[in-house]
Amino acid sequence: MLAVVLLSGGLDSYTAAALARSEGFELNALTVHYGQRHAYEVEAAGRVAAALHVRRHLHVRVDLRGIGGSALTADIPVPRERDLTTPGIPCTYVPARNTIFLSLALGWAEVLGARDLVIGVNALDYSGYPDCRPEFIAAFEALASVATRSGVEGERFKIHTPLITMTKADIIRRGVALGLDYRLTHSCYDPGPDGSPCGTCDSCVLRAKGFAEAGVSDPLLLPR
Amino acid sequence: MLAVVLLSGGLDSYTAAALARSEGFELNALTVHYGQRHAYEVEAAGRVAAALHVRRHLHVRVDLRGIGGSALTADIPVPRERDLTTPGIPCTYVPARNTIFLSLALGWAEVLGARDLVIGVNALDYSGYPDCRPEFIAAFEALASVATRSGVEGERFKIHTPLITMTKADIIRRGVALGLDYRLTHSCYDPGPDGSPCGTCDSCVLRAKGFAEAGVSDPLLLPR
Repeated sequence: MLAVVLLSGGLDSYTAAALARSEGFELNALTVHYGQRHAYEVEAAGRVAAALHVRRHLHVRVDLRGIGGSALTADIPVPRERDLTTPGIPCTYVPARNTIFLSLALGWAEVLGARDLVIGVNALDYSGYPDCRPEFIAAFEALASVATRSGVEGERFKIHTPLITMTKADIIRRGVALGLDYRLTHSCYDPGPDGSPCGTCDSCVLRAKGFAEAGVSDPLLLPR
Repeated sequence: MLAVVLLSGGLDSYTAAALARSEGFELNALTVHYGQRHAYEVEAAGRVAAALHVRRHLHVRVDLRGIGGSALTADIPVPRERDLTTPGIPCTYVPARNTIFLSLALGWAEVLGARDLVIGVNALDYSGYPDCRPEFIAAFEALASVATRSGVEGERFKIHTPLITMTKADIIRRGVALGLDYRLTHSCYDPGPDGSPCGTCDSCVLRAKGFAEAGVSDPLLLPR
């Protein structure tokens, strides 16, 4: 059974993809280059795709910098050492990002004849980003079946979100149990010139907290 | 009131935008370069945007050629002199195209603070393309409000489809009444090297039929 998985190079999408593979899906990985501030995430996606033995790895470029509105695509500083318990949507939110990503995945799925999409949204993102919530996923699933040729012909698309109720620690524990090598991944929103994680952006802080809670050392931070 | 309008350079989106403007919307035009086989459509979008005095005209590139699956993005011949009464979805259907386009429009609308999107889907497309039907539009509207920060904050997005129940002839009559200059537009799926319409693809045939039924000469076909 074919699936299209959105693969960013972060640890969430790597784990979501590995879980889908463990359920018997043949993976087609889609990495979207959307004008992120750095290419390290995209390089990580290539390493992760290779480790997952994906059937195909498609890169699609869509430049969201003209749209802006986010610290990840516009000239807005990435926040540091933020209190992550503050309610509200952080400025790293990219407007409509998961809608755009799932639309591209849907188009490719239709061409491949796949009916299953996999996205690594999770309970932590859920607290901040609107397009990581179960109601968003349900609405996209409803849309997919009226938006496509296959939908009109009576087929139904399924959006798999294997991480949606997990914490970062849960995800890491599952991944470690599956034998995943998180050294391949990249999480930092604003890495140094050599790609090293900054340690203070939301993504680094959430990753560190997840590894600490899981009782595992982050291999990215071990001396090579 | 701000609106984001998807502007392709064809006569439908030009007319839809003009109708929205006539209702008092300030227009922000979004043209998506998706790897169409030719640039004439994009050049036409620039002319149309200027004629409509849009507030901003944003070009977003997203290369759908890697996804393929359509005569407009892959190496599949554009059909000629097809019987347009044949039921079914034609091979010029680009998988998930309007989902991708509306997603980009939604992201930009959110950044601009616009709550209104305009798309020139119509009753003729409706007969063939799944993502031109009212049920698709309704599903996207439902999605928009759970996909975005503004939706979570209680705002609702509206997708305007002023042409959805019109035939091509109806559209042309309305446009002519609004004083639109259809010489600025481009419709052909597969123009000659100088940009001249082929006259035999679905889009040329529908355009010709529309002008004939409206009792108007197509200014594109008049000697300059």
